[in-house]
Amino acid sequence: MARTDPASRISVVLSRPGHPGNVGAAARALKTMGFSDLRLVAPRKPPGAEAAALASGALDVLEAARTFDRLEEALADVELAVGFSARSRDLSHPVVALREAAPRLLAAAAAGRVALVFGNETFGLTNEELGRCQMLCNIPANPRYSSLNLAAAVQVACYEVSTAAALHAPAAGAVKHPAAIEDIEALYAHWESSMAASGFLDPRRPKRLMERMRRLFGRARLEREEVKLLRGMLAAYDKPKKRRAGGS
Amino acid sequence: MARTDPASRISVVLSRPGHPGNVGAAARALKTMGFSDLRLVAPRKPPGAEAAALASGALDVLEAARTFDRLEEALADVELAVGFSARSRDLSHPVVALREAAPRLLAAAAAGRVALVFGNETFGLTNEELGRCQMLCNIPANPRYSSLNLAAAVQVACYEVSTAAALHAPAAGAVKHPAAIEDIEALYAHWESSMAASGFLDPRRPKRLMERMRRLFGRARLEREEVKLLRGMLAAYDKPKKRRAGGS
Repeated sequence: MARTDPASRISVVLSRPGHPGNVGAAARALKTMGFSDLRLVAPRKPPGAEAAALASGALDVLEAARTFDRLEEALADVELAVGFSARSRDLSHPVVALREAAPRLLAAAAAGRVALVFGNETFGLTNEELGRCQMLCNIPANPRYSSLNLAAAVQVACYEVSTAAALHAPAAGAVKHPAAIEDIEALYAHWESSMAASGFLDPRRPKRLMERMRRLFGRARLEREEVKLLRGMLAAYDKPKKRRAGGS
Repeated sequence: MARTDPASRISVVLSRPGHPGNVGAAARALKTMGFSDLRLVAPRKPPGAEAAALASGALDVLEAARTFDRLEEALADVELAVGFSARSRDLSHPVVALREAAPRLLAAAAAGRVALVFGNETFGLTNEELGRCQMLCNIPANPRYSSLNLAAAVQVACYEVSTAAALHAPAAGAVKHPAAIEDIEALYAHWESSMAASGFLDPRRPKRLMERMRRLFGRARLEREEVKLLRGMLAAYDKPKKRRAGGS
């Protein structure tokens, strides 16, 4: 309970927003999902009355928003910058779908500040801006019309992250007690050695086996009790068989 | 591929919207997520220039929107009406979180029309309107400020439903080739017998072990190749150990 709230470690950066109304609406989107750190890079106009009207009850978030001249200044204290792109594949970096990105950026937020970076309404993020991001993320959309409004994209991103973190009233079936990263890493190390001992994994030809396991369990987001259960299971598999029916 | 597209069976109903701009922005939200059937109940003003401006490239959805005098008329051909409520618990019906509701309403869309019903910006859905819905749904939000803009709520709902349906090009890492139910069941059966053979699962005192495994892997949504990988791993564990370092 006393651990750092992931919401306090996540910032939203709007680079060169063209419309003050979108900045206000984005402030509202942040606050409804439990976030508060909004950063603006070179907005075309300073947020004024229109931004305030659209911020509605999130005027505090809008008023506390800091403005920077350049993206690198806005990212100075950020460990992981996640650039949002309407393109889903044609870039040099791989682009990760939002649902898959959310647990990864939450894991990063356990260690440092994470920024969700959105570009200009018309042009998106430039290649130079994308180059300042360590992860690229896409909101899967209608291929014939994928143009989400800027504040709508911020709302969806904040919703996905807050849901992945179970920030608000976890629904039945949500992950309630996520396992710590170090415990998950210890599980993977145990699993790797256990599969090697069983003969299933050949350390000289691992065939991306652990990468595939990480991908599978990364989607599930393991709970503390599940890590314990799986390690208990592996320990049982590690023991020699007590009895065998029939011959070798 | 030739099966009915769930997107064509899902409608969005805005009851008594106060601001034409929100109606236009909602049309855009629908289209970006691949939906097109928008219905309006007694809007305060007909959608005009402001709605058209905010619809942006979704003018076709806005122009095709039908207007009704009463909610029951808008729901005449609907099998399942899902009312969106900012309240998460204090109602006579149970309120389901959006992430949990999405697969249920997709299952219903396989059989008939489903409507996502949103109320007025200020007042939400009245008790009479909620009474016309068979399911109540909530977007989990900041308990201190849970007031999403109407179009932002429509965007999040449409995003969640389209993601649950994997409507748009699953990005790298999403579940591309979901395993068949019977293969997943065979995996669970194999795992159960394998854990029993290892001594980890005592069939006389199973301690909900398989239930917990089902919950974990159910969250991950297994792919075909992953089921094969896990079964290969279990088969290796099932064999007696070839060599053991040290005693016992």
